Amino acid sequence: MSFRASILTLYPEMFPGPLETSLAGKAREAGTWELETVQIRDFATDKHRSVDDTPAGGGAGMVMRPDILAKAVDHVAPADDPRPKLLMSPRGRPLNQKRVRALAEGPGAVILCGRFEGVDQRLIEARDFEEVSIGDYILSGGEPAAIVLLDAVIRLLPGVMGNQHSGEEESFESGLLEHPQYTRPREFEGMTIPEILASGNHARIAEWRYDRAVELTKKRRPDLWAAYCREGKAQR
Amino acid sequence: MSFRASILTLYPEMFPGPLETSLAGKAREAGTWELETVQIRDFATDKHRSVDDTPAGGGAGMVMRPDILAKAVDHVAPADDPRPKLLMSPRGRPLNQKRVRALAEGPGAVILCGRFEGVDQRLIEARDFEEVSIGDYILSGGEPAAIVLLDAVIRLLPGVMGNQHSGEEESFESGLLEHPQYTRPREFEGMTIPEILASGNHARIAEWRYDRAVELTKKRRPDLWAAYCREGKAQR
Repeated sequence: MSFRASILTLYPEMFPGPLETSLAGKAREAGTWELETVQIRDFATDKHRSVDDTPAGGGAGMVMRPDILAKAVDHVAPADDPRPKLLMSPRGRPLNQKRVRALAEGPGAVILCGRFEGVDQRLIEARDFEEVSIGDYILSGGEPAAIVLLDAVIRLLPGVMGNQHSGEEESFESGLLEHPQYTRPREFEGMTIPEILASGNHARIAEWRYDRAVELTKKRRPDLWAAYCREGKAQR
Repeated sequence: MSFRASILTLYPEMFPGPLETSLAGKAREAGTWELETVQIRDFATDKHRSVDDTPAGGGAGMVMRPDILAKAVDHVAPADDPRPKLLMSPRGRPLNQKRVRALAEGPGAVILCGRFEGVDQRLIEARDFEEVSIGDYILSGGEPAAIVLLDAVIRLLPGVMGNQHSGEEESFESGLLEHPQYTRPREFEGMTIPEILASGNHARIAEWRYDRAVELTKKRRPDLWAAYCREGKAQR
């Protein structure tokens, strides 16, 4: 059974976008995942096809109307649709690899791409949307965030990466940033590959890589390092 | 002077992708920003056009070669190019709105999209790449991350948003998640808009919104709330 993504957006032409190419594109051709895009404006009721209105209580910008959105949501996801409903929004819980993996193990997702100042709170509650943030920055709308979320999910779907294990992923899921990587040529602009990597001593190479990963994580992501220690994972 | 983005990628066809539409698309037509994509493979030297090789010291996957990448980088950015060089990578420092704003005030960016197990460490050091992560999840490659970074930057370029102030942004930059928003209709599926928002009492509305923003931030983002308190910003 394939992973079904339904996207509610004012810009359906942004999809599949980068998901048409490479791994995700091949996986869609193979039927591993399906993409449906819905133009929210098609559910507007006035002749201007309005989907938004001014914020109650005043303030800048426009807010997406709950009644129009509810019609669009109900159109793609009837009440018994088992898929989680996600609203891409900087107010959301930060997306992480654990949530990505859980989504990849499920039947798909209904993804609402917010625009303007956001979405009427009553729609979020009435349709049980989970607000998801991909990071602490503001985008023009939820569409690029939806593409990122789908890209992360699709590479985990059965068959997409083959039997490839991603060292980066293993490292990251273990709670550390990945150690530095090196490849040919042996010498590049006077810099050589660290000697230990040519030693053939796998135990010492693993130790060296672990130490570099710890060093980098401490320096760049003290938050991840603190979590790593709290979980009692530190090896030495 | 326009913002110049040069993207080094194995998938130039992924660009401009969603950046062709909406705000970013109009801004590119207006000359507010320029996009150049470079196929890294064009700088390969063997008949298979290889850009990667096995990791020194063993391990899964492939690593991008420093010599091929250096030629591609030097082609788009001679030594005196003032633009920062960014490598999209989950090992990077987390992108935030402050970094986005600094990039938007600069001349542009050279963006290298990593693939496979990553990029030879010597290239990162020799060409002074800043590693940037858009969040704690693994993508198929750096391309969707580059699109997100550019989307965030482009909306801040002069003229793109007009004089529009984004309340979401103001709230977020202040260190809190945004308060809930409401708009018409007054009643939606039996739910009404909170009465205070119709009171016309702007001071009380501002207080109510602040309290909701604090409530949500405490619940969803204890990390942001802790930083907010550390900076002595809490109002009441």
